[in-house]
Amino acid sequence: MRKGEQTKAAIVDVAVALASLDGLEGLTIARIAERMSMSKSGVFAHFGSREDLQIEVVREYHRRFEEEVFMPAIREKRGLPRLLRLFDNWVMRVTQEIDSGCIYISGAVEYDEREGPVREQLVESVKTWLNALLKAVQQSVELRQLRSDTEPKQLVFEMHGLILALHHDARFLKQRAAVERAKKGFERLIASYRAQ
Amino acid sequence: MRKGEQTKAAIVDVAVALASLDGLEGLTIARIAERMSMSKSGVFAHFGSREDLQIEVVREYHRRFEEEVFMPAIREKRGLPRLLRLFDNWVMRVTQEIDSGCIYISGAVEYDEREGPVREQLVESVKTWLNALLKAVQQSVELRQLRSDTEPKQLVFEMHGLILALHHDARFLKQRAAVERAKKGFERLIASYRAQ
Repeated sequence: MRKGEQTKAAIVDVAVALASLDGLEGLTIARIAERMSMSKSGVFAHFGSREDLQIEVVREYHRRFEEEVFMPAIREKRGLPRLLRLFDNWVMRVTQEIDSGCIYISGAVEYDEREGPVREQLVESVKTWLNALLKAVQQSVELRQLRSDTEPKQLVFEMHGLILALHHDARFLKQRAAVERAKKGFERLIASYRAQ
Repeated sequence: MRKGEQTKAAIVDVAVALASLDGLEGLTIARIAERMSMSKSGVFAHFGSREDLQIEVVREYHRRFEEEVFMPAIREKRGLPRLLRLFDNWVMRVTQEIDSGCIYISGAVEYDEREGPVREQLVESVKTWLNALLKAVQQSVELRQLRSDTEPKQLVFEMHGLILALHHDARFLKQRAAVERAKKGFERLIASYRAQ
């Protein structure tokens, strides 16, 4: 990487950390400049606007999410093994984020009333992920590992609920037992959908 | 009510609406004064600080939540009838809030990294509600309507997940079908816990 690209990557790295803690709307060029020991105009030289930086943060977060959650799972066999691994990795990631926060989950609350390109990037990233889960569920049904009357969107909705409850209880209520509850809930869920 | 009390109640009313849309941290005395066509010092005369007002908003939200969700349900018979009604009312309330927002859910994200009395009031309100659900689950087990090996906290966790997924999908992703998904998920859940 050239020096300019290295600096840009370092800015994004700091911005992802700040946005995870305080939200995408908590990001300011001033705070990032301070953390980087740069001038505000130095940060602006790499990002034309705060909004461009927010979008880049969502993209970088998505890349990391894909790398940690999605990529190790697609090495598993199609169908149920892959679905189980996707959920495991998701739980692992949210567990790691108990102290730092998840941009997808906090972003959903921050942008539920806002329009614009940051929201659009966030919606696209979240939908990409939910669609990857949906595909794994559909394959599990096709391979007759899950019951033929499984409604894939319903199952993905219920999986997502377990993750949201984990994030809520662990991060807001400081109840670490939530990690085990999410895993146990998923086992129950899959057992109820599993083909005999 | 005396005039001072009426004004105070009107301020809280406006503040609850604003906090539902933009979050408790989005509340400012200036915005409320503008909405009420009052001076800022006029608003301050009723609330010593922005924090006092935020706490009063959480309390008022809790009163309304109790009135709409909890109170109609405790007229049902103890145990499963009451538990089913609690969930129905909860879904109904979140459905009504798709366009306005839920202070408990957005507050959990806003205050996951903040300490102080607003967070404490919010945690207390959320725990009060989750404990009411827990009690209804425990009674359902005692009355042998739910299986004796039911873990009440696990079931409440899973119910909460359905509500959080409903709020996420309906409010952030604009998918109204989420209401039916939450109801169907709850039916599946209760069926799996129901005593034979």
